[in-house]
Amino acid sequence: MIIMEKGATSEQIKHVVSEIKKHGLRADISRGEFRTIIGLIGDESRISFTHLAALPGVKEARMIETPYKLISREYSELFEGKDESRIVEVGDIRIGGDEPVFIAGPCAIESKAQIFRIAEEVKKAGAHILRGGIFKPRSSVHSFQGLGALGDEEAREALSWLRDAGQKFGMPVMTEVRGESQVDLIAEYVDILQVGARNMYHQDMLSSIARKGKPVLFKRHFGASVEEFLSFSEYIAAEGNKDIILCERGIVPVGKGNSYTRYTLDLVAVPVVQKETYLPIIVDPSHAAGRRDLIFDMSCAATAVGASGLVIEVHYNPAEALVDAQQMITPDELGRIITTCKQIKKLVASDKKKIAVA
Amino acid sequence: MIIMEKGATSEQIKHVVSEIKKHGLRADISRGEFRTIIGLIGDESRISFTHLAALPGVKEARMIETPYKLISREYSELFEGKDESRIVEVGDIRIGGDEPVFIAGPCAIESKAQIFRIAEEVKKAGAHILRGGIFKPRSSVHSFQGLGALGDEEAREALSWLRDAGQKFGMPVMTEVRGESQVDLIAEYVDILQVGARNMYHQDMLSSIARKGKPVLFKRHFGASVEEFLSFSEYIAAEGNKDIILCERGIVPVGKGNSYTRYTLDLVAVPVVQKETYLPIIVDPSHAAGRRDLIFDMSCAATAVGASGLVIEVHYNPAEALVDAQQMITPDELGRIITTCKQIKKLVASDKKKIAVA
Amino acid sequence: MIIMEKGATSEQIKHVVSEIKKHGLRADISRGEFRTIIGLIGDESRISFTHLAALPGVKEARMIETPYKLISREYSELFEGKDESRIVEVGDIRIGGDEPVFIAGPCAIESKAQIFRIAEEVKKAGAHILRGGIFKPRSSVHSFQGLGALGDEEAREALSWLRDAGQKFGMPVMTEVRGESQVDLIAEYVDILQVGARNMYHQDMLSSIARKGKPVLFKRHFGASVEEFLSFSEYIAAEGNKDIILCERGIVPVGKGNSYTRYTLDLVAVPVVQKETYLPIIVDPSHAAGRRDLIFDMSCAATAVGASGLVIEVHYNPAEALVDAQQMITPDELGRIITTCKQIKKLVASDKKKIAVA
Amino acid sequence: MIIMEKGATSEQIKHVVSEIKKHGLRADISRGEFRTIIGLIGDESRISFTHLAALPGVKEARMIETPYKLISREYSELFEGKDESRIVEVGDIRIGGDEPVFIAGPCAIESKAQIFRIAEEVKKAGAHILRGGIFKPRSSVHSFQGLGALGDEEAREALSWLRDAGQKFGMPVMTEVRGESQVDLIAEYVDILQVGARNMYHQDMLSSIARKGKPVLFKRHFGASVEEFLSFSEYIAAEGNKDIILCERGIVPVGKGNSYTRYTLDLVAVPVVQKETYLPIIVDPSHAAGRRDLIFDMSCAATAVGASGLVIEVHYNPAEALVDAQQMITPDELGRIITTCKQIKKLVASDKKKIAVA
Repeated sequence: MIIMEKGATSEQIKHVVSEIKKHGLRADISRGEFRTIIGLIGDESRISFTHLAALPGVKEARMIETPYKLISREYSELFEGKDESRIVEVGDIRIGGDEPVFIAGPCAIESKAQIFRIAEEVKKAGAHILRGGIFKPRSSVHSFQGLGALGDEEAREALSWLRDAGQKFGMPVMTEVRGESQVDLIAEYVDILQVGARNMYHQDMLSSIARKGKPVLFKRHFGASVEEFLSFSEYIAAEGNKDIILCERGIVPVGKGNSYTRYTLDLVAVPVVQKETYLPIIVDPSHAAGRRDLIFDMSCAATAVGASGLVIEVHYNPAEALVDAQQMITPDELGRIITTCKQIKKLVASDKKKIAVA
Repeated sequence: MIIMEKGATSEQIKHVVSEIKKHGLRADISRGEFRTIIGLIGDESRISFTHLAALPGVKEARMIETPYKLISREYSELFEGKDESRIVEVGDIRIGGDEPVFIAGPCAIESKAQIFRIAEEVKKAGAHILRGGIFKPRSSVHSFQGLGALGDEEAREALSWLRDAGQKFGMPVMTEVRGESQVDLIAEYVDILQVGARNMYHQDMLSSIARKGKPVLFKRHFGASVEEFLSFSEYIAAEGNKDIILCERGIVPVGKGNSYTRYTLDLVAVPVVQKETYLPIIVDPSHAAGRRDLIFDMSCAATAVGASGLVIEVHYNPAEALVDAQQMITPDELGRIITTCKQIKKLVASDKKKIAVA
Repeated sequence: MIIMEKGATSEQIKHVVSEIKKHGLRADISRGEFRTIIGLIGDESRISFTHLAALPGVKEARMIETPYKLISREYSELFEGKDESRIVEVGDIRIGGDEPVFIAGPCAIESKAQIFRIAEEVKKAGAHILRGGIFKPRSSVHSFQGLGALGDEEAREALSWLRDAGQKFGMPVMTEVRGESQVDLIAEYVDILQVGARNMYHQDMLSSIARKGKPVLFKRHFGASVEEFLSFSEYIAAEGNKDIILCERGIVPVGKGNSYTRYTLDLVAVPVVQKETYLPIIVDPSHAAGRRDLIFDMSCAATAVGASGLVIEVHYNPAEALVDAQQMITPDELGRIITTCKQIKKLVASDKKKIAVA
Repeated sequence: MIIMEKGATSEQIKHVVSEIKKHGLRADISRGEFRTIIGLIGDESRISFTHLAALPGVKEARMIETPYKLISREYSELFEGKDESRIVEVGDIRIGGDEPVFIAGPCAIESKAQIFRIAEEVKKAGAHILRGGIFKPRSSVHSFQGLGALGDEEAREALSWLRDAGQKFGMPVMTEVRGESQVDLIAEYVDILQVGARNMYHQDMLSSIARKGKPVLFKRHFGASVEEFLSFSEYIAAEGNKDIILCERGIVPVGKGNSYTRYTLDLVAVPVVQKETYLPIIVDPSHAAGRRDLIFDMSCAATAVGASGLVIEVHYNPAEALVDAQQMITPDELGRIITTCKQIKKLVASDKKKIAVA
């Protein structure tokens, strides 16, 4: 990271950037109130930090040790001069602020009537953002892959239902992008582009999504450490898009015998991530559990541990859903979760302010 | 499980028990308000359920499919006719009831002054039970193994400090039993016998501890599934001791790179265990984290997910502790955790009652 | 799977296929010596097996329980009437036959001189196929991403070096496809398209690669069970491309403390896969180890457990490589591995024929 | 580790030892041809290395960084001046030498006739050491726990059968010690005391077993890293017993869905352990697989990766065994494994000598 002197001129900044580009790297320029920080993007072994430090107007060239730099607290502290978290704004919804945000909807969109009815009911229950899958990643090629699999026209139609349902009931909308070829299409219709757990390592798609400039919901892969999770979210930040909402959704279970849940929800990852980066992080209890009778408990715990929100699968009649029938809850249950979690958030936030931890 | 008829005579019960013993098994007799249930303990392949079902006074001989039977909800429902959880009572402390219980104290007892001072301070902070290690299980033979390692006399002395500190400040006390040869000694001094995570699979010690008839805190091994965890707690129940307090303390981390915490706390195991068994379960955030700055968040989450209490390592001056210095918190911090967790417990408990989950 | 009667006419077969398509599924037709088998591809819940079984010319409509069907032994046995493994042919190299196949080359191609020199040396050491990375998947956006990252022209140039080096020294060539947008380009130049471990779950790319009709090297993700590994290879088979070479390269390490290797090589997956599917499986010891001093031992073990070959990273001067310097071996070391592994393969193959396992 | 000067007198050595004891630690004295090395055992934080280095006759006081010291290559190199592995001798069987050693027998001893018949048949098949379980660790208290569970007399009887069968057919014998209270009894009858995977962390039992002075077979826990495995074997060495045979038997599987085997055999742990310590390591394919059709392949791989032997469960009629029926092989199959593995060992050993690894 290149820290410029307070009075550095734009000529000096341009010169530093051109030096960086000359070596095949890119530059991330952050203009703060007091000073300008230039982050290097790309293969750092190709450039000399000593050389950069000696350029006119440069105060310091500092190495950041983690593989994630642009999203690290260290970087934002350099830039802002204080320890502040990022609020990702989607319409007038603020993710990462004092209020928990609830993203809800069906696992897969099945019909116009279905998504409109669910939209109406989750809105009434208190949800802020509407979700619905159109391109479903599935373990088996022999399972339903979402309406997007039926053809371009069907995909567009389903996307427009999602957009329209969101507009009608006053919610921004989100759907998952499963492959690079869907990025452009989906970006036309939705407010948040979702990267599913299975695609966390898919760096080319991450770059491509990031360049759309829209907020990205980025799920942790179930075999990834927190370090890898953050390192790959850096691929999004490296395109200049820092509207990243991280999402914990469970890691592979360990141990012999019945594991009772599909994945092991790693809730402690939430405060760990919050100490490492300034990005907001939310939790998806539905996919981690794989069974609806644990969603309430998991939602309470996720909120208590500090998550900025939840993404929950909801259906008015879970039993008839084509995908994930056993883990979806009803809008009524969602309503109770929202009510309780809001109170927990308030309680924990107020107490946390009082604690000074070493 | 043998379900006796309502009017079964004690002769008939005795006869069933003697049949069970004749085949080399043992019997667990539960006399409920309405009927008597006899649980089989031991190698079930040695006895015919058809034969048992035909004995006089027997209403039904039913197989329970899980490897844990005596601690299963299915067994208690047979017996009690309703779905009730067990309260483990230690003095006038009730573990498993409406109020969360806090067990606190140093990782290792180092001196009389140390344990008395900590006892006083954790009591003031709101703790209910005092803990302190005397026989420390350690990964390296080259680390401090607790005062118990210095000899019998030193062990007895440390145990008496623990007991006396508890008495002075009105708290039952708990310490870890690391080997079979320590069972008798420790049982003389403490109220709760603790089985550490590393000893979860140690079935001979479990039986030996159980026979002391005192409450047992039973920690999950970091490589064990929930199913294995419950199967091994059955070794305690099989000795007729059902005063078992289960404890989740983290499982081995998965994934490459820095994992930031020592273990992955599996909080969802809490409601899962509560659905499978009638035993109370608490959480140990200290060992799972291995760092003190996460203890508050983890405690809140554990309480929100439904744990009946917490066991937390506390020291008035963490930095000078011989073991686990980096994960102990101060009594002040404990106080704040207790205050917040009590509110969360209340909030969640009241809301949970309103929810009807499928 | 639809098993047609022996004398089923092509009209009858067409009719079955059209019924399948009518329900939105696709059909995989296998014409064996004795009978024709039609595999269903897609969401099986949309079609009635009873209905299919009643169509003229249909002998049986059988469900296969595993999520992988087209690649299962059960399917090939139906079709071929015997238990035969598939040989994937690349030029005159046969992968899956009696001789182990060695794929070798640098982690990343760095210059024309480098790939030509390595090609010459690995060929002399006995390698059959040349590998070299051009689009490198990396954990950090701040690491070298391969020559492909420099631009289209540079990518084409590097691909042509690889192709030419292969032609000059008589070896088919292989490189990794990291994103959908690279599929067409890479397929122009190489004989085998490689899917890296991180992309195993990337179903859209798998379909797109499969349609090129060239052999695919398919690596297991480090967080995937064998079942998931095979389920995702089914996405390739579902496009009619069964020239799939499976590759085990290590799973995430479990347990606390130093793990000494980057991943845990799951060698027993090799015979497990061979019992489940007719596809050949090879092993990549380089990425699993992450250190060169274990490559010889791991190669011997992989061959002894039954792998059909090895893919090994080789460089004439490992220390100067831009990527994976610590795990590459020299061509001399490769030569010794090839000599020993050929002997082990012979020994094990001859002994295995004598064993009748239950 | 204290390295004494060449001409150090026994007075000087005694003085160093008494200084070590004065601080509550113990000393491990190794008298080599050239010099004497004194290893510290216990809590190293209690003693000053600078102080020790200044004592008369001391050449150097050196810290060894790993948590295992007495078993490390670094320690043996200091002492012996060269890189030599330890041969554990049991009668005239040498474990760790050029020939692979085969330990075979039933999972559980069920009768005198059974163990005698199996002893005869495994001997004929080429086995060197006879194994048989009397105290069986089981996940469920409701499963058969071995004849040892029936009472002291039955335990003694079963132990004498094992001893006598070994004597009659010329094989040393081994059985598992499951709890501290069995150590004395078992040590009366057998040549090798086995520590099962579940007891790896059971440090009190390890110390107690070690003090018997007999060779110890020490299995890795399925949730343990290699570092923990070695750290706990140090508890045995710390009692002055270095006749430790390490044993890899599989770690917990990772990933969702069917895992096909009970555990994941970590074969690469074999060469890793051999680089870290001078102790021999063998492999148990039976428990790792949990199914007999993989034992041949796993045995070949274990031998090829460098294991010094195998421990395999064998029964003349696997189907009728009370425990582990599905994983035992017949004596005939054992014979074929022994023949093949001996050839692989020879082949690999001769080739390894030719390789110079960096």
